[in-house]
Amino acid sequence: MFTLFHHPFCPRSRFARLALGEHGLETRLVEERVWERREAFVALNPAAETPVLISEGLPPIPGAAIIAEYLDETHGAALGRRLLPAAIADRIEVRRLISWFCDRLYSEAVGPLVTERIYKRYMSVEQGGGAPSTDMLRAAKTNTRYHLAYIGWLARTRNFLAGDDLTYADLAAAAHLSAIDYLGDVPWDEDDAAKAWYVRIKSRPAFRPLLNDSLPGLPPPAHYTDLDF
Amino acid sequence: MFTLFHHPFCPRSRFARLALGEHGLETRLVEERVWERREAFVALNPAAETPVLISEGLPPIPGAAIIAEYLDETHGAALGRRLLPAAIADRIEVRRLISWFCDRLYSEAVGPLVTERIYKRYMSVEQGGGAPSTDMLRAAKTNTRYHLAYIGWLARTRNFLAGDDLTYADLAAAAHLSAIDYLGDVPWDEDDAAKAWYVRIKSRPAFRPLLNDSLPGLPPPAHYTDLDF
Repeated sequence: MFTLFHHPFCPRSRFARLALGEHGLETRLVEERVWERREAFVALNPAAETPVLISEGLPPIPGAAIIAEYLDETHGAALGRRLLPAAIADRIEVRRLISWFCDRLYSEAVGPLVTERIYKRYMSVEQGGGAPSTDMLRAAKTNTRYHLAYIGWLARTRNFLAGDDLTYADLAAAAHLSAIDYLGDVPWDEDDAAKAWYVRIKSRPAFRPLLNDSLPGLPPPAHYTDLDF
Repeated sequence: MFTLFHHPFCPRSRFARLALGEHGLETRLVEERVWERREAFVALNPAAETPVLISEGLPPIPGAAIIAEYLDETHGAALGRRLLPAAIADRIEVRRLISWFCDRLYSEAVGPLVTERIYKRYMSVEQGGGAPSTDMLRAAKTNTRYHLAYIGWLARTRNFLAGDDLTYADLAAAAHLSAIDYLGDVPWDEDDAAKAWYVRIKSRPAFRPLLNDSLPGLPPPAHYTDLDF
């Protein structure tokens, strides 16, 4: 049994949830509001970031990319369901894209959008709460368009984002897009290939729990849960 | 034969050089000034960051952490010189610390110091060049003290930073500190344990090439190359 410290709209937490789900691993979810810097959580992960996976008998596993490596080594490889493929060249490409999505797409687009539009609603003034910064939103939305175009380019070139098969690269990208799709911030009409790829990923059973998350007072657009939007 | 696109004072490039050196792998170094966004380099690595390792017959390997995983899988495991240990719990801790040093120590302290004090000397005004920002320097120096204290705490608790043996965690931390030690920006007198640990890592043969790097017009402090400072 696993426990995941997460936030429902933290895109990296969503990636970890998809990775756990694809491996068929039941997980207890604990919502963590990292901006509160809860002492017991900082003790688990000095970086004070979600997600953190707790697996009995092991040190806390911090960060989506490290959780993905752990799950592949302990479950994916054994079950023959490798979301991090065995061939060296494929591993390089999957890891490159995990980093691209969890670092670049996160910091340039999804992180600012989620922080400004969701987290700030729950933060006190001392924690950085308040109205969203329109400058941040504008920059993040512009960056989202570039990232969507890159995802579309990958989707047109390959069957899945990193190659022939589903990998962590798809889960990382879809997790990030899903968090801002809830906010209506993905311009799907700009890229048919990206949209068609996302529909495929979104239809997977592991994705369902993400589509059920909701925020009081901030409903998602109608297409968010629609599997054929 | 490997080729590494790097910058002599990019701390993540230094980590990759140490990893290659510890594995006994000869590498051709090509200096890359990422702020010039050279087209052929951006084609190699869309993230436009150093380091990037070229290994014949494989896609370019971008990023110090991904290079480290690659070297462990292709050389470390085979040669029995694992800088990423085999035990699951140890792998979690080493990966946690690689990320801590390459992401946190980098963005909070070493990245800003190197950018303000070294890169900016070579950048045009359009590229962001100019005089160092004293605010950035002040914040980065304060953060360096916290990071040094954390490294000291690890060094007092364990033989090497991640446990009994030398791992990538030591190389990542030492690579980062070495870049700002050249600038005289590590307050060694604040932490004896960190200093004693650094002297041990710095004395390794793989470290020597880093100590020979120098910048015209900006000599290092006397202790920089001293193995027993």
